[in-house]
Amino acid sequence: MTLEMHPQRWGDPAHAAPLPESVRGLVDAFVGTRDTPAVEDVRLPDAGIGDDLLAALRAEIGDDAVLVDDESRRLRTRGKSTPDLIRARTGDLADAPDAVARPGSPEHVAAVLAWAVDHHVAVVPFGGGTCVTGGLAARRDGYAGLISLDLVRLDQLLSVDKVSMTAVLQPGMRGPAAEAALAEHGLTLGHFPQSFEFASIGGFAATRSSGQSSAGFGRFDDMVVGLRVATPVGELVLGSSPANAAGPDLREAVLGSEGTLGVITEVTVRVRALAAEKVYEAWSFATFAEGAEAMRTLAQSGRLPTVLRLSDETETMVNLASQSDIGGDGVTGCLMIAGYEGEAASVAARRAEVTTVLESLGGTDLGEERGQAWAAGRFHAPYLRDSMLDAGVLVETLETATFWSNREQVYQAVKQALETSLGEGTLVLCHISHVYETGCSLYFTVAAKQAEDPLPQWLAAKAAASDAMIESGATITHHHAVGTDHKPWLAREIGPVGVAMLRGLKGAVDPAGVLNPGVLIP
Amino acid sequence: MTLEMHPQRWGDPAHAAPLPESVRGLVDAFVGTRDTPAVEDVRLPDAGIGDDLLAALRAEIGDDAVLVDDESRRLRTRGKSTPDLIRARTGDLADAPDAVARPGSPEHVAAVLAWAVDHHVAVVPFGGGTCVTGGLAARRDGYAGLISLDLVRLDQLLSVDKVSMTAVLQPGMRGPAAEAALAEHGLTLGHFPQSFEFASIGGFAATRSSGQSSAGFGRFDDMVVGLRVATPVGELVLGSSPANAAGPDLREAVLGSEGTLGVITEVTVRVRALAAEKVYEAWSFATFAEGAEAMRTLAQSGRLPTVLRLSDETETMVNLASQSDIGGDGVTGCLMIAGYEGEAASVAARRAEVTTVLESLGGTDLGEERGQAWAAGRFHAPYLRDSMLDAGVLVETLETATFWSNREQVYQAVKQALETSLGEGTLVLCHISHVYETGCSLYFTVAAKQAEDPLPQWLAAKAAASDAMIESGATITHHHAVGTDHKPWLAREIGPVGVAMLRGLKGAVDPAGVLNPGVLIP
Repeated sequence: MTLEMHPQRWGDPAHAAPLPESVRGLVDAFVGTRDTPAVEDVRLPDAGIGDDLLAALRAEIGDDAVLVDDESRRLRTRGKSTPDLIRARTGDLADAPDAVARPGSPEHVAAVLAWAVDHHVAVVPFGGGTCVTGGLAARRDGYAGLISLDLVRLDQLLSVDKVSMTAVLQPGMRGPAAEAALAEHGLTLGHFPQSFEFASIGGFAATRSSGQSSAGFGRFDDMVVGLRVATPVGELVLGSSPANAAGPDLREAVLGSEGTLGVITEVTVRVRALAAEKVYEAWSFATFAEGAEAMRTLAQSGRLPTVLRLSDETETMVNLASQSDIGGDGVTGCLMIAGYEGEAASVAARRAEVTTVLESLGGTDLGEERGQAWAAGRFHAPYLRDSMLDAGVLVETLETATFWSNREQVYQAVKQALETSLGEGTLVLCHISHVYETGCSLYFTVAAKQAEDPLPQWLAAKAAASDAMIESGATITHHHAVGTDHKPWLAREIGPVGVAMLRGLKGAVDPAGVLNPGVLIP
Repeated sequence: MTLEMHPQRWGDPAHAAPLPESVRGLVDAFVGTRDTPAVEDVRLPDAGIGDDLLAALRAEIGDDAVLVDDESRRLRTRGKSTPDLIRARTGDLADAPDAVARPGSPEHVAAVLAWAVDHHVAVVPFGGGTCVTGGLAARRDGYAGLISLDLVRLDQLLSVDKVSMTAVLQPGMRGPAAEAALAEHGLTLGHFPQSFEFASIGGFAATRSSGQSSAGFGRFDDMVVGLRVATPVGELVLGSSPANAAGPDLREAVLGSEGTLGVITEVTVRVRALAAEKVYEAWSFATFAEGAEAMRTLAQSGRLPTVLRLSDETETMVNLASQSDIGGDGVTGCLMIAGYEGEAASVAARRAEVTTVLESLGGTDLGEERGQAWAAGRFHAPYLRDSMLDAGVLVETLETATFWSNREQVYQAVKQALETSLGEGTLVLCHISHVYETGCSLYFTVAAKQAEDPLPQWLAAKAAASDAMIESGATITHHHAVGTDHKPWLAREIGPVGVAMLRGLKGAVDPAGVLNPGVLIP
């Protein structure tokens, strides 16, 4: 598998997924195929950085570590949101970096930042390039240039402490490489977001990622116990202890900072024993509300599987149609996936407890076949999006989180906002995939017929959905982060004092403003 | 029970604890009684604030809400560290506030801050006054005065959401009042630090408190899902969701800020069902290291009781001697307390699991009697300190946290630093009372013969112990917070970039620097 993604599509071309016939049936009513120019024909903007500056950069980190060729620049242009893909498909790569720097050590990272400050060059830290909120499209006006700081060479597992059950990882490790390296020690991180195959350890930390096994392993920010960070004013090393009362926890200021406060050069994570057994099973509930109540009961009683997901009625119908090979007949209502990972005895005990709760709350056990099918396809949805875009369907995801008592209100408000904005025939699917004692996430997938110009069409729908989230008291993002796309709503969510706090942090560690300008901080 | 503590002693005089005869035997070798002047004879410094300023403050929040009498000032002078008590016992109340403001609403708090900014008055937020790290001894030079902002009137449970299992509490509620109000709804917060009887909800949040039931209920910062904060630049309201990726989690910047960034006016907490059953039992392990290994096994396997504590050999010996009524005979090695709270079935299941682990790792079950005795006396240790000070014994506690692989090294380093600094005959006791998957706390109690002037004697020992913590890679505080006493070591723990981040936050929300000046931020 390649580590680099096609500029116009998700992931590895070898894994592209044509639309299943059954899904074609759902979308054929309103689609037409679209032509996309070949990527080689898409013209890059001229690099706006001076050769003297690049020479100075090469002197710091080596000739081979600075790339200026078209392909290198193209591969690090924006992320993988639907607007990103639409722009790339229509030949717009205006956000391409002028050059790509690939530091080989934390000292190299510090040298790049010093160089950037000296010459007032904007720096965009780059991990897996999987961002879906515009976090890689930094502002370039007013800067002497814009470079992508690709952390791919910092890809090692540095150490393992099996007594404390921690490991030190470099930020450029992708999900599979980190898991493979830890597996050699019998360990796992247990972080499996949909972007797992391409996203990086540094990116997980910088964006407060949350994975599909969060019910069992927690969010990525729960896993981080230490950070090493290069900033323009010096190095920051945090992680004296699992938890403490030594002032505000500054680890939490770095987590979620999306490359605007510093570049993460090492992450110390809590690890666990590699699971001996993994079982995924499916359940059905009559309604989304009934299934959600069952999830709430599990979360508040502390009896959680490792994976816990619930699709609403529409998503259940569409997903089963797209998995016709495993049989969509006979399932009504809402599909839940419950997965258990761990030692055999622990898996059996938790499964028995959860089964009792789910059965008592109206759940019907559908067995393992559909659960294993979910696990097998858990990282593939973004490929399906490419096929939908190919077929002229506008498709995108967005997500939020709220407290349990507000779940139904937020669900209805976002769904209605999308349907109203995109008009008749719009499909809005939703699932809950992260639960807490006090609330849950809501993850929406929306599909509609593409307008002549799909970009403003989607941006209007996205704004309507985002307004609905903030107006109903929910967050603008549970795990997709802020980037540039969510900034106006972040400002509403945290208010002017919250914005002042972010700016205070920014001014303290990046007074020249070279780190990811225009991203995150309103 | 009174809410206000004696200026020279802990807690309610009605609960004062004379030294048990058995403990007298341990300390009689090196003590002599000390005379302490009656509190009424201790002269307060003249109030340094102008009458015109106080009149302006009264106009904002009401005549009755501004107190200037000696007793009110005396009761809000410093906290309850041993140096605080020594100073008060020797007649030094130099840190007394000029006046006490008692706002009756969040709007009042905002008005006090606006007044303080306008007139450049230093403001010390005051909850229960239980601080043991100098967090109430703000710097006054350069200010037109210094007032104590006592939140005692903000003492209500504002709302309960039984679906989301959250509650909104005002900051001035003390621990018992919060538990009593929640109990009327069948709920509990589950936060029981040693200061529980006097400390406040706002104080728990502002100092990242951690309670004796942290193995089951988590730290106080784990419980907070929302905050309302008055700052000099406006109100901050946080808590859109249980968790999110909307930038750095700013709740974590307020938690632990010790009144330097704002005054917390509401705290939304996660609550749980009131425990139907509570059982505390005692175990014995041959050595501290063996007991710690058992704790590590429990924490890393996710099989935790609600309360889990382990005393080292010395603390075990001293504690059993002081509990002679329940019989100290026949116990060797190290005493562990395991407590279970919850529904009967859950208590039984967890107890069975933990018992299996502890027995397999060398533990001897000592039954419930000593466990219940610990629970009955869990908040009483500070009273014993007063009696020790009366008897001429220097006694104080200090604490840290580290990763499991570093536990023994930190334990030995701190113990040795204290013994070396205080000399022959010094008793150093230690226990572990908070565990995590990756590490644990270490809580030390030290007793030594008082020197002629015990203050420099203790400050030298404290500095030596603090140096040992930082030099061995641990934190300067697990749950006592930073205040003024830990500032130099906080600066070493988080480094110059971390300090810059704290200053950046401070400058953003308190540009005039009126909030708790000199506290926390190096």
